[in-house]
Amino acid sequence: MNEFELIERHFRRAPHHPELRVGIGDDGAVIAPSPGMEYVLTVDMLVEGRHFVAGTDPVRLGHKALAVNLSDLAAMGALPRFALLAVALPDADEAWVAAFMRGLDALARQYDVELIGGDTTRGPRNLCITAIGELPAGSALLRSGANPGDRIYVSGTLGDAALALAVAGGRSDVDARSRAALGRRLDAPEPRVALGVALRGVASSAIDVSDGLVGDLGHVVTASRVGAAVDLAALPCSPALRAKLGSAERELALACLLAGGDDYELCFTAPHAMDERIEALALALRLPLTPIGAVGAHGGGLTVRDESGRALARLPQAFDHFG
Amino acid sequence: MNEFELIERHFRRAPHHPELRVGIGDDGAVIAPSPGMEYVLTVDMLVEGRHFVAGTDPVRLGHKALAVNLSDLAAMGALPRFALLAVALPDADEAWVAAFMRGLDALARQYDVELIGGDTTRGPRNLCITAIGELPAGSALLRSGANPGDRIYVSGTLGDAALALAVAGGRSDVDARSRAALGRRLDAPEPRVALGVALRGVASSAIDVSDGLVGDLGHVVTASRVGAAVDLAALPCSPALRAKLGSAERELALACLLAGGDDYELCFTAPHAMDERIEALALALRLPLTPIGAVGAHGGGLTVRDESGRALARLPQAFDHFG
Repeated sequence: MNEFELIERHFRRAPHHPELRVGIGDDGAVIAPSPGMEYVLTVDMLVEGRHFVAGTDPVRLGHKALAVNLSDLAAMGALPRFALLAVALPDADEAWVAAFMRGLDALARQYDVELIGGDTTRGPRNLCITAIGELPAGSALLRSGANPGDRIYVSGTLGDAALALAVAGGRSDVDARSRAALGRRLDAPEPRVALGVALRGVASSAIDVSDGLVGDLGHVVTASRVGAAVDLAALPCSPALRAKLGSAERELALACLLAGGDDYELCFTAPHAMDERIEALALALRLPLTPIGAVGAHGGGLTVRDESGRALARLPQAFDHFG
Repeated sequence: MNEFELIERHFRRAPHHPELRVGIGDDGAVIAPSPGMEYVLTVDMLVEGRHFVAGTDPVRLGHKALAVNLSDLAAMGALPRFALLAVALPDADEAWVAAFMRGLDALARQYDVELIGGDTTRGPRNLCITAIGELPAGSALLRSGANPGDRIYVSGTLGDAALALAVAGGRSDVDARSRAALGRRLDAPEPRVALGVALRGVASSAIDVSDGLVGDLGHVVTASRVGAAVDLAALPCSPALRAKLGSAERELALACLLAGGDDYELCFTAPHAMDERIEALALALRLPLTPIGAVGAHGGGLTVRDESGRALARLPQAFDHFG
């Protein structure tokens, strides 16, 4: 199995989208933009030993490597269209590649994402995906659009992926059923693609929660030049995490909820006038969209109020790869 | 120096191209295509220990990481516009990052390429660049366009980068001046951007020579369903390599010339009617464009004729990362 056979068997496929003029198999892919549309581009690199442990199920890894990119596109309100995949592999393990591509392809099919290019080389395992999405010109959801008075929302629940990591690392424990549910949140995150697209013209700003709520909402606060106040009691979380908030493990639970990475939920802001549309959207998507606080004036920073309404003195920090 | 400071200080810059609506600093970059234009996308991953040795000058590495991508765009006839950079670094060595970005930025400025996104993480050193170029709809130079009777050309000289590697590895030797010249070919390849753009409407097919002439021209032969015959005596090479062809090191010289990677010259085909335009182009660009053979009928495969006109019985193979 050489590099070219690997590409031929596992990566190459016939062009499918009408905008794709040239797919895998030339020096580059050629795409023909549709009039009135803009492209959104994002890249994410997953490193063995950093983002996943050696021996991680390659099917789940294929899913996750694409999911984290689709989550970024969702946070911009873009519909995913194309992806390029660069991989470094320690050896030409064809079974591993086939399983990885099964995971990636299943998610790609779900969102009609077409693999249009890539690179394959030998090296410490590293998966780097560039994803390209599309949206009507001018409709991108930016971090910089939040306004004082807007409500702050998050989709789904927060902190489960971080709690799953803590359980896997022996720093906490949950019952077997919760363990399975948490594990799915960590290994197989669902990018909020439909939500992101539906939030065009509704949300004033959006970001995906990949590094933890405090850090990611902090980016919105900085980019929008606003303040933000969040109510701890309002934060949506799983029953397993909720139970720990009222236990001796409260500190761990707070860290998961406020600074746990890998949630891939969307955090967005919207004016009150959008309350009903957002409620209707939650019903239509069967996805909780929970108001968690309010955007305030510039200079106020980000505060999190505890159950008694007092600001937490110290906020858990966002994940920093060089911290 | 944390991850966000690293991004803020070394990667972030203000949007510059009018088509760039949102640059670094959001979940994705937003680009607004120009009417009538298509985008070309390509990705290349450079791994420490595989594509470069530990301790390689980061300035040269920054140049090369972008150059290999611009070379792919050139081979499609695209004008480079944007790039996304994902890096894994073993530590937050700010001096290394600053030097790497100096090398990358210098080349980016030369070709007006704008860095629009990226990802930074800790891990074994790995540099993954996605480059985006632009061209008028339908004008991409493909591997599949060669026709029987076309001439085959290469730009510049072939084999110097591979000879530099052989010299560095102690498998060959050259005088000090040649060593410096060869080293530049390996460390600081010049992507043939102006040539690629000028070949739109002139060349029938094109590819960049990154894995070696035999392998890369072989891709054109396969994609175009043609044959090809190349004359060894016609292949342009440096005096240092030419000298070795007539010496005891002939086998090494043949391997460099026919299968040496990292040349980043363009190999293209064109009908005879383009002879004069191509001669004029070589003068205008001050870049040798050398006819090296002819495209033949499908089924003939790729043959290389030696100085006496006899086909070489065994062709050196292209570089294969899993070979």
